[in-house]
Amino acid sequence: MANYVEMWKELGMDLENHDALCQVLPTAFGDVYLSQENRPAAMDFWDMVVADIHGIRPAELIEAQKKGQKVFGTFCVYVPDEVVLAANGIVTGLCGGSQFWVSGGEKVLPKSTCPLIKASVGARLDRTCPFFRIADMYVGETTCDGKKKAWEILGKDVPMHVMDMPQMKREKDIKKWAEEIADFAAVVEKMTGNTIEPENLNHAIHIVNEKRKALARVYEARKAEKLPISGKDALLMMQIAFFDDPVRCAQMANRLADELEQRIADGVSVFPAGTKRIMVTGTPMAIPNWKLHHIIETSGAAVVCEETCTGTRYFERLVDESKETLEEQYRALAERYMGINCACFTPNTGRIDDILRLAKEYHVDGVIDVNLKFCCLYDTEGYTVEAALKEAGIPVLGIETDYDDADAEQLRTRIEAFVEMLG
Amino acid sequence: MANYVEMWKELGMDLENHDALCQVLPTAFGDVYLSQENRPAAMDFWDMVVADIHGIRPAELIEAQKKGQKVFGTFCVYVPDEVVLAANGIVTGLCGGSQFWVSGGEKVLPKSTCPLIKASVGARLDRTCPFFRIADMYVGETTCDGKKKAWEILGKDVPMHVMDMPQMKREKDIKKWAEEIADFAAVVEKMTGNTIEPENLNHAIHIVNEKRKALARVYEARKAEKLPISGKDALLMMQIAFFDDPVRCAQMANRLADELEQRIADGVSVFPAGTKRIMVTGTPMAIPNWKLHHIIETSGAAVVCEETCTGTRYFERLVDESKETLEEQYRALAERYMGINCACFTPNTGRIDDILRLAKEYHVDGVIDVNLKFCCLYDTEGYTVEAALKEAGIPVLGIETDYDDADAEQLRTRIEAFVEMLG
Repeated sequence: MANYVEMWKELGMDLENHDALCQVLPTAFGDVYLSQENRPAAMDFWDMVVADIHGIRPAELIEAQKKGQKVFGTFCVYVPDEVVLAANGIVTGLCGGSQFWVSGGEKVLPKSTCPLIKASVGARLDRTCPFFRIADMYVGETTCDGKKKAWEILGKDVPMHVMDMPQMKREKDIKKWAEEIADFAAVVEKMTGNTIEPENLNHAIHIVNEKRKALARVYEARKAEKLPISGKDALLMMQIAFFDDPVRCAQMANRLADELEQRIADGVSVFPAGTKRIMVTGTPMAIPNWKLHHIIETSGAAVVCEETCTGTRYFERLVDESKETLEEQYRALAERYMGINCACFTPNTGRIDDILRLAKEYHVDGVIDVNLKFCCLYDTEGYTVEAALKEAGIPVLGIETDYDDADAEQLRTRIEAFVEMLG
Repeated sequence: MANYVEMWKELGMDLENHDALCQVLPTAFGDVYLSQENRPAAMDFWDMVVADIHGIRPAELIEAQKKGQKVFGTFCVYVPDEVVLAANGIVTGLCGGSQFWVSGGEKVLPKSTCPLIKASVGARLDRTCPFFRIADMYVGETTCDGKKKAWEILGKDVPMHVMDMPQMKREKDIKKWAEEIADFAAVVEKMTGNTIEPENLNHAIHIVNEKRKALARVYEARKAEKLPISGKDALLMMQIAFFDDPVRCAQMANRLADELEQRIADGVSVFPAGTKRIMVTGTPMAIPNWKLHHIIETSGAAVVCEETCTGTRYFERLVDESKETLEEQYRALAERYMGINCACFTPNTGRIDDILRLAKEYHVDGVIDVNLKFCCLYDTEGYTVEAALKEAGIPVLGIETDYDDADAEQLRTRIEAFVEMLG
């Protein structure tokens, strides 16, 4: 591991506190990931990234900033990366997936806030996340009550732009989102000093589409009867995708997909024949939240698909690349992004259609509907999701959890019983 | 008490279950209300209404329906009553203020949903609320995650129209709300079979403005040094205002205001000199939720103002009556309603301004910022509210509670300590 201490110091991070995180992460990763057998060789890239997760990419971002590029930190799959890329900006995900950051968030947020929001705010306020220190601007959105109000507190500490998400999907709402994207583009132009033109925007749209296609190829391989990759490894690729350069992300995902396709041709699987196939639906799993996947995949089952924001919602469907004016392009972006079926919309019947379709495409034996504690949206929608799955004859287990390991054994018991029931 | 059993039976209510509620309510009302000394004589109207709360008004609504009028059940102060009244419709509040209904809601909603939403859904699904049985249509809004998703479940059982609330207050958002009001008007016209014209809409605007002015007169009397009315009695008037005919509501509030103004002239107070003046800010208190007011007013303090949806947010500011076209009128309605400062907006700095202004106008000694458990919006905004009050040198106590009485003694201890500290 390279020495990034000087960089972290220059970023004004709380080194002592951050050290505590650096000390536990390699062990956790070793236990959860490196213990797996017969992993695809192409996972070496992601193993390397995780080993220096607060070092390699942050150093790249700082280099880019020195050359005049601006970095935009985002929290949600609805924020269009294309607009930032078109203006020669860089998009990065932010920290939010570890219990380590939760207590910092609880200093200013209600305890009954979801751990993702508490961890994000804690990571920033406690100065233990390099990405939060590096970003020149933060882009929030009004996708849930918790985030919407958390931005107000975060906004006192950092420059923040908030995009107002419509809560329905009528024609006028798609139009409204296109307007929000245009407003965001103006903010990005001002911050970067670069102009967004149809040419550079189409180039950016193409780059992000290629990234989506590459991620989709990896997921496509998970539809095979003989699974060439674990759910944990696929999840890791998705988690890092939020932080990486989009061109490299596509390259690495394609490299992985090549190997997976060869494995399928060769009949190589990382699971014994007959392993039960689980789809996970619900709330996102930010790095290093591997808790549920690890429990499932050490309980006699395999995760074959994630209908989450760190899964299919991130890459399904492409943006139309044929548009020639900014107005048409913003509209095309709005159509693609408004096609994501998040529980923040009402009604959100498209998500039920997605889940039933994915269950079929990935040949799932059962669904685990997971809710991050205090996520009111996915928790409430879980009632409808579980009813629809039952009606379709697909076994479903509803689970609520957070980042704390206290419930791990209880979850394991429930999941083992569920998997056994599928047999 | 008149016998309304036959009516409830015809409404398809669960009589046995409903009886349990009818048996406890009079005792609760007696303990909390009738135990007060020297109440304004004009409170006799509200005492009568509460004594037959599931009888008198429901019977009136049923009579009106027989004559062809339609009843619209609403949940939120953002839904413009004026539009319904203009089409000769009737607006009614719905049940949602008692622990009695909570368990019914928990059958379909997460336990970590606010009690107001759980009670509303429970009251409907358990068939123990006549207003829910009577209404021809329900009007929801997307003001919070919990309600937004609850409408989807409720909508399977009842005809439901949902208005999409913008989450910001920019010019384009006010325009959007005016469009939502126009869309709602079309729904109301279809349901009632009546056309909304500028004339009948202006008449409706006038009626609701007169109601607002009358309620404001009662609140104005609470600014007096010698308090002519308790906070509990003022709260009761507000709670019933959501259910009553608006013209009668104005008459009764004006009658009460006449008496209060006479009391002020005569130097009559319902509290001893020197009683500490408390403003309550935060989440609404639906009837029969009198819990916090009762504890405060039996702990040596008086509630002089509620900055809540069952308080100032309901009646402050009027709709412009001078507009002559529907488009202008919808815009005028949008401006008035979007002027309400709910925590569902981001940013919501107007609410901080309101609270500081009201604290001054009502000469408050301290503020109790109350949050209904699991209301993420007001809970998170509480951080900002309490910081602003501290900065202004106004003592503030933050409280989270629900409808359950289990925490009553603990709350009393904290509130007594707070009031003593003000001394």
